[in-house]
Amino acid sequence: MNTFSLTRILSCCTLLVYLSLATVAMAKSTDPLPSWNNGTTKSAIVQFVKNVTKKGGVDFVPPAERIATFDNDGTLWCEQPMYVQLAFALDRVKAEAPKHPEWKETEPFKSVLAEDMKGIMASGEKGLAEMIMATHASMSVEEFNQIAKYWLTMSKDAKFKRPYTELVYQPMLELLNYLRANGFKTYIVSGGGVEFMRPWTEKVYGIPPEQVIGSSIKTKYELVDGKPVLIRLPEIDFIDDKDGKPVGIQKFIGRRPIAAFGNSDGDLQMLEWTTANNAPHFALIVHHTDAEREYAYDRDTAFGRLDKALDEASQKGWTVVDMKQDWKQVFPFEK
Amino acid sequence: MNTFSLTRILSCCTLLVYLSLATVAMAKSTDPLPSWNNGTTKSAIVQFVKNVTKKGGVDFVPPAERIATFDNDGTLWCEQPMYVQLAFALDRVKAEAPKHPEWKETEPFKSVLAEDMKGIMASGEKGLAEMIMATHASMSVEEFNQIAKYWLTMSKDAKFKRPYTELVYQPMLELLNYLRANGFKTYIVSGGGVEFMRPWTEKVYGIPPEQVIGSSIKTKYELVDGKPVLIRLPEIDFIDDKDGKPVGIQKFIGRRPIAAFGNSDGDLQMLEWTTANNAPHFALIVHHTDAEREYAYDRDTAFGRLDKALDEASQKGWTVVDMKQDWKQVFPFEK
Repeated sequence: MNTFSLTRILSCCTLLVYLSLATVAMAKSTDPLPSWNNGTTKSAIVQFVKNVTKKGGVDFVPPAERIATFDNDGTLWCEQPMYVQLAFALDRVKAEAPKHPEWKETEPFKSVLAEDMKGIMASGEKGLAEMIMATHASMSVEEFNQIAKYWLTMSKDAKFKRPYTELVYQPMLELLNYLRANGFKTYIVSGGGVEFMRPWTEKVYGIPPEQVIGSSIKTKYELVDGKPVLIRLPEIDFIDDKDGKPVGIQKFIGRRPIAAFGNSDGDLQMLEWTTANNAPHFALIVHHTDAEREYAYDRDTAFGRLDKALDEASQKGWTVVDMKQDWKQVFPFEK
Repeated sequence: MNTFSLTRILSCCTLLVYLSLATVAMAKSTDPLPSWNNGTTKSAIVQFVKNVTKKGGVDFVPPAERIATFDNDGTLWCEQPMYVQLAFALDRVKAEAPKHPEWKETEPFKSVLAEDMKGIMASGEKGLAEMIMATHASMSVEEFNQIAKYWLTMSKDAKFKRPYTELVYQPMLELLNYLRANGFKTYIVSGGGVEFMRPWTEKVYGIPPEQVIGSSIKTKYELVDGKPVLIRLPEIDFIDDKDGKPVGIQKFIGRRPIAAFGNSDGDLQMLEWTTANNAPHFALIVHHTDAEREYAYDRDTAFGRLDKALDEASQKGWTVVDMKQDWKQVFPFEK
């Protein structure tokens, strides 16, 4: 190869390098959080991500330790006028009622069949647990997943007339992607049933089944006609709410998150646990302040009550999203 | 730019492409499993990996579904003359004995302090559970992890006079890397305590804490002087052995593995569950046949008994590693 060719090759390589740099610069100028209005909330998120990813910086966190945990109901998708899983359970009671004539006379089933929401709520946690056991157990894991998946495909919410999986928050989808693009591993840590979420979280949030932590009932391994099955038992295994969230995080992840995202008092302990991390950390609460585009609620609601956690956020300087102010767009279907 | 320059640039790019292809070809010719002797066992592994990664092939499995689960004791590291965690518990009983004068007269502690292995074994599962509760609980998760980590640094096994974390199988380390290089997510699914494994599996096996599934005791979230801690309670939470392995896999991963690796009857149900997957699948059992380089045992041993699973492997055509024949090298420290 003569000197002339070598020079040519070098210029060619230089050109390639310039082209790559230009591409990187273009990518960098694209806002990764376009549905977030500019302001202190968005800046706090972006600054935190910059700090923990800056090699050699004082706040640098190695990628393996960049664990981010997200509540689901009210943080990633809509939880009003009732938890989606409760709507599912009510529909399942109605669908199964013909096999259970005794339900006509037994609470909480009687109230469900009469569509008496007050009666249902009056049955309390005990009633809710009975409904879950009657509709979520005594079948294989695969059968339950099929039922949940089918119901989610066929059902629509009352206000927006849309499938529930469309009622996810566009700014939070962007946030999930932004964190993952910066080396974070994103987890759901929800009070909801883990097997109710797993069939759709990968498609909707990009979160695979193994990164979904939730409440669960026990399962039993059995050979049925020589074929192994996991049968769901009518017995609580784990409640992934309040104190249960840090417990679930340790049980399933075994590392403390450096970022946690919630919206209610059920997330308080997860945020406490995360912000007591010796590593740099970030805590955010979604405050539902937009009655027009979604719902406005906090201290006085049956679903997703935000009271103590709102006070603690203000005392401890956690980031609070004012949905009305901070979100340019709420749902992906808005144009 | 004239035609001449363009031609030069194109040749330069062609050259770069050739160089890259040459590198790929070189990498491909390197044996990813050098500690495995050539033969049917090694071929079966390589053929399975080729099949599931071949795009457009009938057996192709998308990367997200390439879950591989590994037992730990006897599959990834040595489990003779006793489980490492049992050696840890015995040492912990001795270390804590001064605080418990009553142990001198109470089984199984009395036998432990007298170094009477027969007496310890005679105390059975109940005795083992009591020992675990006395030595593994009533402290924070972080304290326990420090104790386990420190013990592993300071302790050596009786036969090889090496730290336990050096008694890992070189061929299995290569297999873990080979699977990961082919898009597999590798998990430990062990009867051992999850928090006893998590402090070192990432360094030793490249398996991060969140991909370690094991037996566990309950934990409780508490605020101590305003600081959140997770306290380990003397109460069994989950036994990840036998029937518990498929249950644990569903609970923690939520997908069925396509490959599973074990060495004892404790792994039988995990292998059954994996090989009942509708997707292509692979099951392997490590048979300890090398009394000289490691240990030889199967149907008649207190730790890692391989009896039913050996019969089932032969009936169902699962791959069985004959350690003596199939492994060129057993431990990383052998030259």
